Amino acid sequence: MRAMPFRDGCTIESPVRDLRRVPIHPDHWYPLAWSRELKPGKTLGAHFAGEPIVLARTASGSVFALEDRCAHRQVPLHAGVVDGESIRCGYHGWTYDCSGQCVDVPYLGRERLPNGVRAYPCREAHGMIFVFPGDATLAGERPLPQLASVTDKAYKTRRFGREVSCHYSFMHENLMDMNHQFLHRRQMGQMRARSLGRRRGENFIEVDYTFVRMAGKQPAGEALVFGASKNRSEQSGQSVMTVRTEYPYQTLRIRSNDDALVMDLWIVYVPLDARQRTNRTFGLLSVRRPSVPFLLDAAWPLLVWFTERIFKEDRAIVELEQAAHDRQGADWNHEVFPVINELRELLRNCGDRTVIPIREASDLA
Amino acid sequence: MRAMPFRDGCTIESPVRDLRRVPIHPDHWYPLAWSRELKPGKTLGAHFAGEPIVLARTASGSVFALEDRCAHRQVPLHAGVVDGESIRCGYHGWTYDCSGQCVDVPYLGRERLPNGVRAYPCREAHGMIFVFPGDATLAGERPLPQLASVTDKAYKTRRFGREVSCHYSFMHENLMDMNHQFLHRRQMGQMRARSLGRRRGENFIEVDYTFVRMAGKQPAGEALVFGASKNRSEQSGQSVMTVRTEYPYQTLRIRSNDDALVMDLWIVYVPLDARQRTNRTFGLLSVRRPSVPFLLDAAWPLLVWFTERIFKEDRAIVELEQAAHDRQGADWNHEVFPVINELRELLRNCGDRTVIPIREASDLA
Amino acid sequence: MRAMPFRDGCTIESPVRDLRRVPIHPDHWYPLAWSRELKPGKTLGAHFAGEPIVLARTASGSVFALEDRCAHRQVPLHAGVVDGESIRCGYHGWTYDCSGQCVDVPYLGRERLPNGVRAYPCREAHGMIFVFPGDATLAGERPLPQLASVTDKAYKTRRFGREVSCHYSFMHENLMDMNHQFLHRRQMGQMRARSLGRRRGENFIEVDYTFVRMAGKQPAGEALVFGASKNRSEQSGQSVMTVRTEYPYQTLRIRSNDDALVMDLWIVYVPLDARQRTNRTFGLLSVRRPSVPFLLDAAWPLLVWFTERIFKEDRAIVELEQAAHDRQGADWNHEVFPVINELRELLRNCGDRTVIPIREASDLA
Repeated sequence: MRAMPFRDGCTIESPVRDLRRVPIHPDHWYPLAWSRELKPGKTLGAHFAGEPIVLARTASGSVFALEDRCAHRQVPLHAGVVDGESIRCGYHGWTYDCSGQCVDVPYLGRERLPNGVRAYPCREAHGMIFVFPGDATLAGERPLPQLASVTDKAYKTRRFGREVSCHYSFMHENLMDMNHQFLHRRQMGQMRARSLGRRRGENFIEVDYTFVRMAGKQPAGEALVFGASKNRSEQSGQSVMTVRTEYPYQTLRIRSNDDALVMDLWIVYVPLDARQRTNRTFGLLSVRRPSVPFLLDAAWPLLVWFTERIFKEDRAIVELEQAAHDRQGADWNHEVFPVINELRELLRNCGDRTVIPIREASDLA
Repeated sequence: MRAMPFRDGCTIESPVRDLRRVPIHPDHWYPLAWSRELKPGKTLGAHFAGEPIVLARTASGSVFALEDRCAHRQVPLHAGVVDGESIRCGYHGWTYDCSGQCVDVPYLGRERLPNGVRAYPCREAHGMIFVFPGDATLAGERPLPQLASVTDKAYKTRRFGREVSCHYSFMHENLMDMNHQFLHRRQMGQMRARSLGRRRGENFIEVDYTFVRMAGKQPAGEALVFGASKNRSEQSGQSVMTVRTEYPYQTLRIRSNDDALVMDLWIVYVPLDARQRTNRTFGLLSVRRPSVPFLLDAAWPLLVWFTERIFKEDRAIVELEQAAHDRQGADWNHEVFPVINELRELLRNCGDRTVIPIREASDLA
Repeated sequence: MRAMPFRDGCTIESPVRDLRRVPIHPDHWYPLAWSRELKPGKTLGAHFAGEPIVLARTASGSVFALEDRCAHRQVPLHAGVVDGESIRCGYHGWTYDCSGQCVDVPYLGRERLPNGVRAYPCREAHGMIFVFPGDATLAGERPLPQLASVTDKAYKTRRFGREVSCHYSFMHENLMDMNHQFLHRRQMGQMRARSLGRRRGENFIEVDYTFVRMAGKQPAGEALVFGASKNRSEQSGQSVMTVRTEYPYQTLRIRSNDDALVMDLWIVYVPLDARQRTNRTFGLLSVRRPSVPFLLDAAWPLLVWFTERIFKEDRAIVELEQAAHDRQGADWNHEVFPVINELRELLRNCGDRTVIPIREASDLA
């Protein structure tokens, strides 16, 4: 039988940490829900990397985030009720305000109130509820992501996303490596990406691409998202796609030959479970409205269909990558594209210093 | 990220065992099935704390209990057939009598019969089949529970129960802490319990309550079970509810102001799996018949509906408690009610001396 | 509570390895699929003992077998496409020929091609696709199984099988121990096997049986498979059934009193998962055609029904055996039949030298 590599071989033979075991760094703002998911007077249970967090919207519309557990018997507060500007646990009625302080135990005097639970910095922007799961003293100095196209009326924005069962790093690599057009051959025909150059800094890396069609004609969905190409040779000179990871977020922008931003995607992959093997993707895709009014609105269903198909193929393949990593117990990847090797180094350097424990391979077999 | 407590910190920092890892003590009589579940000439596979036990009822109606495995190839005997007063394994036909002795191997001479399997003391009472899973030499001196109201024709009894996915201790605490009326606010309105006093002994603890309605009127289902209150102020002086854990059983009794026993609940929580994270609840709820004949029978469906609703809410909340414990890997509970702290001490002291192994938190994530 | 045997007691108290933890030896030819399952121009993902293997049939009809992973990002090659005589990975289009060599990366020059993946010796015979998962240098000298009756027109052959959730050794023991007729009492009535004698060699063991009917009459399905018996006493003198394990295959042959081979079953149990707790059974049952033309064809549905019923009962019982072993964490079996003890010794001696890791009993509870 084939000799299997020693499970922790990677760690012992080299100081390089297995990227799939690097936790995302908590000292950033992460969306945990869409604004529309949290109704006034309701709670919503969410997770960040295995930490249960309850989001609450009071009757006045303000939002706050606490540890999703009652300090008493540890049942999740999201199973409780919003009462004025606080949350009341559904079991014995212990009550917490937006700072996590316990402000009422129905059967105890106010002078004997126990300690409360942790509160998280929480802000609402661009239709998302952001939480800062790390060191709260840093929350003020770390800016929320700026999404200029989302607030610019020259663009129409689609919000999309769902759970994907893989480590967030697979998502970054998938979007940045445009050599995977073969995966989308049914949607895009035979395209070939050409890397024009790349730039990097301490917390970002970005790469520019142009595309050449090898065969077939441009599908309508693609024309809508990436811009129509008048003819094949012209296309290669026209648009430039830039994919950028600015930790922990990612953007994909397409500029036409006159340097106009025609498409602007912002996306983030929020780990849900403690092992960070599942993430919830929050994506905002902004497309510049053409000069003909309502043309984009009319074509919107086609854009939705096209992006859903692409996203579905990407999701399937990254989940297969994660399954392979789980089975192999280490990172066997053999990368040949320099941009991706640099991206991995960035994700390792910007990640948390701890290591995600993994299951024994035998437990998964 | 929040510092997680060291997993075994509790054990190391203090001599107090994590209650959720204390196995129930096997030297008691536990019901493993309702009598009606075991038909004449049939077998029934049951479990006590991970031990598979086969119950058999012979054609004559008598019941016995053996290890649920054939000594030969370990397949469960409950997949076999009752043959006269013995069980025949369904694979090669090895046969065991009620003492567990192997009395026939079809293809071996009687002089070469192998050893048999363990038999458990087994008795049938009050519509339940009780087994003594511990040291069989103690079975004779430990009495079966006495359920006086069940056999008294002045009462009508409802048998109920189902599997609940939590350690048995959560069940005891749930019933004994009457400050959790907030959980049942939809069924009971705004009630507040007042603890009148408590008594304890080596193997029991009991607490008395009265109830005050804070708002709203008494629902019909509650009146039926707890007795109607003429008016609000009167109620508080009338009925007394006593909740008692007499290891390993629990009772809840309501006496009217003339000291008549109007409701008598007996309940036990039998661990099913080795980790004792699931229990099967056997409850017998006896209600005193009112002076008007058949009134109770007519109202019985309402009582069933009311108790099922209450039980469903209790089940949901204790399962959330267990899930929190599994995730936290230790007992983070912060109890403020003295009765419950004493109950926990009792359950620890009366429990088995071993420790339930738990999964790594990372395995559950 | 019952004292549980020390988990590794068997290993420590005696040098005998737990048979259920002995991996099957990989230096043999194993069928991984039926030929009909692999269409021209398609791939098929298969497993041998936890190793993922992709089978591919090119447009020309030839078959090859590779590790089922792309050397690049480890996604399974069975999710890719057959392209001429090679497989193209579905993600970035890396391409492998039948020897596992990487022959194209669309975005790299041919001079920079990375290493490929492992290829397995692969042959097609008797409607099955065989792979040699062990030391490939031994594949040439190890013959494919010879299935004379399958190619002989005097016989009609049924191919059958499915996944069974147990270690392959339970399957060998099940078929060889004909004292388990009690399991099939509904299909066969009361039969009793009599062992006539046995023979063994380094890599085989075989045992002869005759059968005596204790009560009832012969069912039609059985008559078809095993041959009709004119009367009860005559039967015992007539047919001889020989069950043979010739590692790793098994056969069951019935010869009539004139030494004609009337039934010839060849069967093999291929482990699927790394823990070898699941196997895929490939069985070929050949029945000699009677002198009346088409009689066997007409009766074939009855034979199918009969064998399916028998196989279903066997599958259920061996899966119960495996479940008991998983729970007990060791081999508690208490075998009294010498043939089976010798068979176990054979399976241990011919198996791989490594040990299958098992889960903790507590993980399974």
